[in-house]
Amino acid sequence: MLLLIPGPVQTRPETRAAMAQDYAPWDNDFRAVYAEIRERVRDLAGGVKGEHATLCLQGCGHFMMEAAIRTFIPAGGKLLVPRNGAYAERAVRLATEAGREVVSLHAPDTEGVAPDKVAAALAADPGISHVVMVQNETGSGIVNDAQAVGAVVRAAGRRMILDSVSAFGALPMSLAEQPELDALLFTSGKCLEGLPGIGFAIARVDRLEACQGQAGSWSFDLADVYQHALRAGWGSFRFTPPVQALAAFRVALDLHAQEGGQPARLARYTANMHVLYEGVQTLGLTPYLALRHQGPIIVTIHQPADPAFALQPFVDALKARGVLISNFYNTTAPTMRIGCVGAITPEDMRGAVAAIGEALQELGVRQLAAA
Amino acid sequence: MLLLIPGPVQTRPETRAAMAQDYAPWDNDFRAVYAEIRERVRDLAGGVKGEHATLCLQGCGHFMMEAAIRTFIPAGGKLLVPRNGAYAERAVRLATEAGREVVSLHAPDTEGVAPDKVAAALAADPGISHVVMVQNETGSGIVNDAQAVGAVVRAAGRRMILDSVSAFGALPMSLAEQPELDALLFTSGKCLEGLPGIGFAIARVDRLEACQGQAGSWSFDLADVYQHALRAGWGSFRFTPPVQALAAFRVALDLHAQEGGQPARLARYTANMHVLYEGVQTLGLTPYLALRHQGPIIVTIHQPADPAFALQPFVDALKARGVLISNFYNTTAPTMRIGCVGAITPEDMRGAVAAIGEALQELGVRQLAAA
Repeated sequence: MLLLIPGPVQTRPETRAAMAQDYAPWDNDFRAVYAEIRERVRDLAGGVKGEHATLCLQGCGHFMMEAAIRTFIPAGGKLLVPRNGAYAERAVRLATEAGREVVSLHAPDTEGVAPDKVAAALAADPGISHVVMVQNETGSGIVNDAQAVGAVVRAAGRRMILDSVSAFGALPMSLAEQPELDALLFTSGKCLEGLPGIGFAIARVDRLEACQGQAGSWSFDLADVYQHALRAGWGSFRFTPPVQALAAFRVALDLHAQEGGQPARLARYTANMHVLYEGVQTLGLTPYLALRHQGPIIVTIHQPADPAFALQPFVDALKARGVLISNFYNTTAPTMRIGCVGAITPEDMRGAVAAIGEALQELGVRQLAAA
Repeated sequence: MLLLIPGPVQTRPETRAAMAQDYAPWDNDFRAVYAEIRERVRDLAGGVKGEHATLCLQGCGHFMMEAAIRTFIPAGGKLLVPRNGAYAERAVRLATEAGREVVSLHAPDTEGVAPDKVAAALAADPGISHVVMVQNETGSGIVNDAQAVGAVVRAAGRRMILDSVSAFGALPMSLAEQPELDALLFTSGKCLEGLPGIGFAIARVDRLEACQGQAGSWSFDLADVYQHALRAGWGSFRFTPPVQALAAFRVALDLHAQEGGQPARLARYTANMHVLYEGVQTLGLTPYLALRHQGPIIVTIHQPADPAFALQPFVDALKARGVLISNFYNTTAPTMRIGCVGAITPEDMRGAVAAIGEALQELGVRQLAAA
């Protein structure tokens, strides 16, 4: 089965094999694994030793987002959220329920966030301390320009939290060049091609020290995670971690490096995207995004208007052909979303396009381009 | 390597093997796995279909504790915590940082919580809505009597949250007979012998419905998890779950049933405990708890007063003999803690006792009993 979803992604057998063992998290050998992981992802993010710290929580990307908002924005504090996708909506809910005040910058889910609109929103409200943005929206496949938006945040003297959950490892990032970033957030099971279970924040040490005690949640206090890491020396988890996911993640980092790191991964995913984006058009399907807005992580496609089409039967017909895609969508229009990420190649993608064509035929959907 | 720690525990190869695959969480086949797990653990806990719901979060036991406190006790609400161990201390911190008011019932970490003292504390303060108790303290090995304490909570017309993280699956539990329990909390990686990564709450449906909207955290709002499960029909996760840990957990539940369920598991762990408890005494070591207070999950042992003893070298010497124990302790006196849980047998325990004797000899610790 080929998983073509935004994550958990298809992984390599070497990575999965590391899951099939027992580990003791506080064992000194295992602590070394964890310490190594933290340094390697900081380096991958262009972080600076002593200036940036890697902090982990058990769980998922949403937990990291709530933790970062709580840690860096005090209760009652105000954040700007550019809202051009489902994950931005979720950040709004996480912040609001945590008692932070959200200022919204609404935007269509078919275009990236416009830096000049962020600049204008910040200029209009000096009470906004932070911009919280999603780098890649897995609902639509839009990539928001973290460097360009970061630059206007920096120029305005404000801070930023970047959800890079479905982007980090594939899209470029240099924390050293983006000092406005309080935290960069990602997880183990997306473009780094590990298994799910661990959330990461790479955060500024000066900000972690300045923001102690304002999270209003011990579990989600990244400043406390940092203090614990200092005390524990080796940076061990405060609570029982998903040890298998950590062990597998180290293997995934090895494979990422062997492939050629972020540029090589971006190149492969981009090639996957082009095969899919162009392939589905030859089948008569219409991508949700214009090519100039299309990111390399997810291709979202309009569901055919033909009444013979329904999403779950289509997903089932594809699955019978060894290709698994999401059986739901979260764009404003009815779509289907297909991942270009994970341990998959352009050749796999050509097979997927063929399977999509067969599945549409099985459902009796009229092939517009073939007509 | 034999893991003798409170969890993640030693698992069976069949359980670990389920980790080495990719899964798509929202795939209909996988949803069925998750739905089955939720029903099976509710039944194991003596819960009643329609009255009790199983709710899961990504992560660890501490997250479940914070979630249960936030969900069932409003901000500013008051809870009583019997404090006779390290995990009770952690519950106090989780509740306090979440803005709930803790009333403390201090007790020595060498005895179980006294039900009459809980009754007196509740009678003295009508503002206390909940008792939050840890069933098994993995720091000391003490088991607090959930049935007896529950009875006084019930008699006082109050509610209870029970941390059964390191107990559930081995100690008896009947939610049907304990209607005072708002939630029973446990995780995948302890006495049910799965791998870590998933936290469980089995909670009363009437209470979940009555307690909507007071968590102050979307991530940790169990009432929202329940509402989401109703909407999603199959009860899927709101956020990306650790799919491998779920798949492995179903295998672990099969093995639990094949062994004979909770009574059989308790019998095996109790046998493990006796081999260890008596074995270390023949080596001249002194258990931390009197036998009448000793639970079947963890045996904690005083560190020898001999200056030749130090914990990390002892742990290393044991590890060289294939036995891994914790390299820290969290009792008031210096101890070492050894787990009796996981896929281990009394025969394994006899080997562990022999290895402990050899490790002490290697360190040059004087063997009191042998003298």
